[in-house]
Amino acid sequence: MMTPALAAVEALDREDTLAAKREQFALPKGLLYLNGNSLGVLPHGAAARATKVVEQEWGVDLVRGWNTRDWINLPTRVGEQIARLIGAAPGQTLCCDSTSINLYKLLAAALAMQPERRIVLTERDNFPADLYIAQGLVQGRTDSGIELKTVPATDIEAQLDESVAVLMLTHVNYKTAAMHNMEHLTRLAHDHGILVLWDLAHSAGAVPLALDSWEVDFAVGCGYKYLNGGPGAPGFLYAATRHHEALRSPLTGWMGHASPFEFAAAYEPASGIQQFACGTPPVVSMSVLSAALEVFAGIDMQDVRRKSVALSELCLQCVETCPELQTLRLESPAGSAERGSHLAFSHPHAYAICQALAARNVICDFRAPATLRLGFAPLYLQYRDVWDSVDVLGDILRAQRYLAPEYAVRKRVT
Amino acid sequence: MMTPALAAVEALDREDTLAAKREQFALPKGLLYLNGNSLGVLPHGAAARATKVVEQEWGVDLVRGWNTRDWINLPTRVGEQIARLIGAAPGQTLCCDSTSINLYKLLAAALAMQPERRIVLTERDNFPADLYIAQGLVQGRTDSGIELKTVPATDIEAQLDESVAVLMLTHVNYKTAAMHNMEHLTRLAHDHGILVLWDLAHSAGAVPLALDSWEVDFAVGCGYKYLNGGPGAPGFLYAATRHHEALRSPLTGWMGHASPFEFAAAYEPASGIQQFACGTPPVVSMSVLSAALEVFAGIDMQDVRRKSVALSELCLQCVETCPELQTLRLESPAGSAERGSHLAFSHPHAYAICQALAARNVICDFRAPATLRLGFAPLYLQYRDVWDSVDVLGDILRAQRYLAPEYAVRKRVT
Repeated sequence: MMTPALAAVEALDREDTLAAKREQFALPKGLLYLNGNSLGVLPHGAAARATKVVEQEWGVDLVRGWNTRDWINLPTRVGEQIARLIGAAPGQTLCCDSTSINLYKLLAAALAMQPERRIVLTERDNFPADLYIAQGLVQGRTDSGIELKTVPATDIEAQLDESVAVLMLTHVNYKTAAMHNMEHLTRLAHDHGILVLWDLAHSAGAVPLALDSWEVDFAVGCGYKYLNGGPGAPGFLYAATRHHEALRSPLTGWMGHASPFEFAAAYEPASGIQQFACGTPPVVSMSVLSAALEVFAGIDMQDVRRKSVALSELCLQCVETCPELQTLRLESPAGSAERGSHLAFSHPHAYAICQALAARNVICDFRAPATLRLGFAPLYLQYRDVWDSVDVLGDILRAQRYLAPEYAVRKRVT
Repeated sequence: MMTPALAAVEALDREDTLAAKREQFALPKGLLYLNGNSLGVLPHGAAARATKVVEQEWGVDLVRGWNTRDWINLPTRVGEQIARLIGAAPGQTLCCDSTSINLYKLLAAALAMQPERRIVLTERDNFPADLYIAQGLVQGRTDSGIELKTVPATDIEAQLDESVAVLMLTHVNYKTAAMHNMEHLTRLAHDHGILVLWDLAHSAGAVPLALDSWEVDFAVGCGYKYLNGGPGAPGFLYAATRHHEALRSPLTGWMGHASPFEFAAAYEPASGIQQFACGTPPVVSMSVLSAALEVFAGIDMQDVRRKSVALSELCLQCVETCPELQTLRLESPAGSAERGSHLAFSHPHAYAICQALAARNVICDFRAPATLRLGFAPLYLQYRDVWDSVDVLGDILRAQRYLAPEYAVRKRVT
């Protein structure tokens, strides 16, 4: 018998101090959405802002909007909204481009700051997109001897030495949710003069971060997961003020120029974080992200974390006590302190199970080759949703519905 | 007396075969908008699509939208919509990132194809953002001896020799509207084994292009000018099929991977143009651009060009015959065949004149130090708009309204 009982779970929802936030999201009726770690739910305010920025700002003000609507400062304004969630003082966070492109900018800039060191150290199981960006950057610089060293997570500390220029890691693993100790690893790296670049894709908006206090050098992150900015929302980057003088972005676009509208022939970087801007900012999508971030107003990230842990622990307890789910193997760390805000289970039929769940209105996702990911976005998920989802999962495994032929062939891309 | 007379201009509007297209745009009442070369007007369809992609696609389908709404193929689908306007057969055009980032990708990739040549040749008066990107790329590769050579437009042909790896030019000059002969320069460059990279920012959607016929190697372009995709809309890139095998993007993001959802540790480029995708596509803004491009359905770019030339010539005639406007100096080429779709006039008070025009609901723009730009977007501009705008301009110069103190200080960014 799955525990806790539903009544106890409903009591958790009644006591939830974040419960009211759910009202701010356009959650489709009847959908159990355990995939906010992949694409966050639409906030009502973001929908309203989309209409406003298109019809009122672009439609009416047209090119004047750069001034009348202050579009020109949108990247820094949205950057500061994000800064509050990641423990960054003003002037260090910029909303721009994609996570991948921001990673490229900062990795190249960090490498240029340490010309006597040529190794980029990262984790073998880092998000592949981050590995790809680093591989491409290294491949383009073979003549400069830059090398990408990928090691298992357990070997990172032992590999920190004076040959390493940059330690590049993702804080919360995209697959297992394993969470690094950012403060600890940053300090160890600094002891060897290594610069540290963190990818916050699965942490920003879900896990409390204190980038300034932890003396993080650089970070990038994603706007469409826990920040709820919409599919393909702009990413962001963080660079500590102490590095601004020495840093140089390789993507020297006009929005990163000291005086873009002087149209001078020579590039001269803007001061501060603005130098990491490149092309014209995507006003529509960035405005939508800005509205989505307003949902975080007045929220303490410690409360978000408490609920995230409670939701994950509830899920674990349900899975562990549901007789039909004993074939699921937990891929995430067992201790909540070592995890982000999702859980990964492996099962040989993970893909088909994921599809069978979707057919029952439970949305989670599959990661190749055999992982089922269940994400817990504390701003709109109820405890009851978790309980109901595991109940449906138990039902599917009990009846072996995942063996139905329509679930056999992989055709979904994400 | 300004000629032609208003009655003759109204006749031009009655005979305009593109006149009906104007109905598809949300033109603010009473506004004379001569700035579609900077930010295109909102098409009604784009406004409707913005609401749909946010509320129906993201809001309802959530992460399933990657499959159910085919978001995953949006970059290639929108790329093909643009391909039709630039004379590109399928499989060579991708909508992604910003113009600047796309320029960086293709310039780096083109240089890597010609390792024995180290010179990037460009025009001194190229759009500064393009120069900045090239400068940043060169600066990051000092050890490889890459050099950026900037020459006056008149010297380009003489500088084409076997030392040049890439000729990088903007087809239509952002300031003067001077238009290069793309076919001719591409052929000359090819005679010396030079690869050619064109920026189509001020041509796509305004000037007929035949990239395939002209054997262009690479091109980039902008989504928010004549394509009307909205402020900061995604850009696009073109790479001729014959180069796909040899090309390697320096921005090796997961969307350019052969199998992104296999999450393999090693980067393996996708085949074809897809390899130039980088991060997750910006679904909201790209969907808006896609809807904006639908306005071009059934349109022959030769008709667009004919009207663009007629509008520009009308403007010139009005300016030349308006007694008050004899202090304006034409900075654009006098011959319509050598121009794109805007006109540049210099005047010592250009900035103040631009502001005085805006106060009278005539929107054009200023480019430092002393240029007034008037743009002619044939899909929504009437001949009458041009006549009325020049009439207001004459009025402002007659009364020297630009000397009003509120117009003296430069405060607008664009």
